[in-house]
Amino acid sequence: MNAEIVCIGTELLLGHIVNTNTAFLAQKLAEAGIDVYHHIAVGDNRARLTAAFRQALSRADVVITSGGLGPTVDDITMETLASLIGRKLVLNKTILKDVKEYFRSKKLRFPEESIRQAYIPEGIKWIRNNVGTAPGIIAEYKEKVVICLPGPPREIEPMFVKDIIPYLKRRLDADWVIKSRTIKIAGSAESQVDGKVRDLLNLKPPTTVGIYAKLGQVDLKIMTKARSEREADISIARIERKIRTRLKDNIFGCDDETLEGAVGKILTAKKKTIAFAESCTGGLVSNRLTNVSGSSRYFKMAVVAYSNTIKENVLGISWELLTKYGAVSRQVALEMAKGLKFLACVDIAVAITGIAGPTGGTKQKPVGLVYIALVTDRKRIVRECRFKGSREEVKFQASQTALDLIRRNI
Amino acid sequence: MNAEIVCIGTELLLGHIVNTNTAFLAQKLAEAGIDVYHHIAVGDNRARLTAAFRQALSRADVVITSGGLGPTVDDITMETLASLIGRKLVLNKTILKDVKEYFRSKKLRFPEESIRQAYIPEGIKWIRNNVGTAPGIIAEYKEKVVICLPGPPREIEPMFVKDIIPYLKRRLDADWVIKSRTIKIAGSAESQVDGKVRDLLNLKPPTTVGIYAKLGQVDLKIMTKARSEREADISIARIERKIRTRLKDNIFGCDDETLEGAVGKILTAKKKTIAFAESCTGGLVSNRLTNVSGSSRYFKMAVVAYSNTIKENVLGISWELLTKYGAVSRQVALEMAKGLKFLACVDIAVAITGIAGPTGGTKQKPVGLVYIALVTDRKRIVRECRFKGSREEVKFQASQTALDLIRRNI
Repeated sequence: MNAEIVCIGTELLLGHIVNTNTAFLAQKLAEAGIDVYHHIAVGDNRARLTAAFRQALSRADVVITSGGLGPTVDDITMETLASLIGRKLVLNKTILKDVKEYFRSKKLRFPEESIRQAYIPEGIKWIRNNVGTAPGIIAEYKEKVVICLPGPPREIEPMFVKDIIPYLKRRLDADWVIKSRTIKIAGSAESQVDGKVRDLLNLKPPTTVGIYAKLGQVDLKIMTKARSEREADISIARIERKIRTRLKDNIFGCDDETLEGAVGKILTAKKKTIAFAESCTGGLVSNRLTNVSGSSRYFKMAVVAYSNTIKENVLGISWELLTKYGAVSRQVALEMAKGLKFLACVDIAVAITGIAGPTGGTKQKPVGLVYIALVTDRKRIVRECRFKGSREEVKFQASQTALDLIRRNI
Repeated sequence: MNAEIVCIGTELLLGHIVNTNTAFLAQKLAEAGIDVYHHIAVGDNRARLTAAFRQALSRADVVITSGGLGPTVDDITMETLASLIGRKLVLNKTILKDVKEYFRSKKLRFPEESIRQAYIPEGIKWIRNNVGTAPGIIAEYKEKVVICLPGPPREIEPMFVKDIIPYLKRRLDADWVIKSRTIKIAGSAESQVDGKVRDLLNLKPPTTVGIYAKLGQVDLKIMTKARSEREADISIARIERKIRTRLKDNIFGCDDETLEGAVGKILTAKKKTIAFAESCTGGLVSNRLTNVSGSSRYFKMAVVAYSNTIKENVLGISWELLTKYGAVSRQVALEMAKGLKFLACVDIAVAITGIAGPTGGTKQKPVGLVYIALVTDRKRIVRECRFKGSREEVKFQASQTALDLIRRNI
């Protein structure tokens, strides 16, 4: 049993938008155990769309299209499909009511051309679109199925999960399950991780491990294909145990977990409060930590101190220290954390000072040099880092290192 | 003259990664005036890849592939192409030297299997990869061209811009230019923008306008196809003038410009300094503004005050005011801005207080309620906003509204 994904729209061919639908659909199909051998993108052109439909139907059991369901004459998915499967397009009054209601709720005039979106091939299943105007359809045709869905990700994604996947599972009774699990690592370079799991990276299917280096993070992705969920879970757990034994506390989480979420969990569990004094990161560390719901339990404050005057007046750094060592120094980082701890009355105070670039670097203190200090009642740690990359990349790596330092020291 | 894009890799078919290469390549090809009618993604499977190559060569003048150039036996792009065009794979010593050097610079052991990456079809052009190990190739074959490039975006993008586009321009002498310009609007809802430019949204090719609503922002994209750069520029400028006349100062920038960048430009030009007191945005506004290079000229400090104690001790808000009106109130927002202006000694002080959610809302003060205050020597403005969405979406909309308020009031 296999599916083919056909994305329709000239804006895709022109590269005006990144096609995220394909990855989304492919992932959901893989999880349901349905193989996909081809993704296609084609423009709003009748001849080429018809050819794409024909080819997809010749080699796949299920053809899933996204896009080309809009109200304009350029949107030809529905009429192309109708003529291919030999059905008339007919007006569906329920859909028309939905479309009109959509415009009313948005306080927009109902554009007459949107009536086109209520025409679907006669006698086929349709799927309500709760977010936009174009409905989806499921056309069963000579042992095969064609499913047409709208283009915008926020419309297609809920429809696919809620309606299409259950339909396909019922219909296809899939034999295989593909599962994956991502183990996330901070504070280790790719080469260090690679060195510890090289044998696992060479595993052969059905269970394999891939290594993906990101900015300030390395992911190990375990993938497996099995006859059942249970069998897949066992294969993944067996490899995960090996990875955990070797990488220990370098691992901060799995799958959707974030480093800031991991830090938040530990702070909550240990009932500790925290504050930040940020210079070069400009508020990024606080912003990341406050993206975690419930962070007001442990996060008390941050001072983004972008000038020496503020470092002096608000954090109490002495002018002598600032002039002697410079704002970007081990000494000032430590004093910032100490001044902040006093100001915010927290258990953990973290200060970050550095040169984000692209300008402002010198030979002694190049762009990318960052000092991170962590002060508690019992600890005083200062870490010197040298990051590479753009301004935003330096900021991100500094925030990642700061969060990881917290994770390892509470 | 037209091109077809073929992306190769089972990880694409499984949806493990979003295919951003296609949009990138398509955009660059469109800018060069080269039409693209099909995008294809296919797995690491010899039969299907051969079929995809044959089909692409049958309908396009230029076939561009990405992926499948890695060191493992799964990576079969090069050998599939070689057998299709009837050439032997031969070892290229310069490439081998490059690949070895790559591992040396990363302090990784040279893996023997990477020698595969130095084998290319005999007698064809190759392109150096300055970021990774796999070189690109340009194979001219029976009036057509096949270009094979690596999969990772940070490898393919510089190679495509630096080597492939100039090659294609020389070869194809393209007849058409496709250009676009995006006009960016903040502080207006989609329906308001739609109401002002409805006639333009109905324009027919060659020059069209599309409307794209994002979180806290509406984009109008003008697209045109013309015989020359100059003709395209004239068509775009004619529409842009109309849009600017109607939307006036709701427009904050074009194309790659950001709202924080626009705010930074105005602050620099007017030589004003700024500071933030952030509660619910948690440092996001400061983080966005400090992403702009040179922001230390105007941005002095931020206080992220996540607790009432901090609002009291650092910003000097009276306990009476906090208890009487609550931390999320017009009064506290204004006092936060005033207290901050005193603390930071800046021209403009902006305070944001609200409920980001998903918890913490009440009937009187629901999730999404945000107050933004702006204080200068001559102005005192407080804006009440009600945002919808997730925690991060509320934070983002609040930051967007704060930045837009600054832009309109300095």
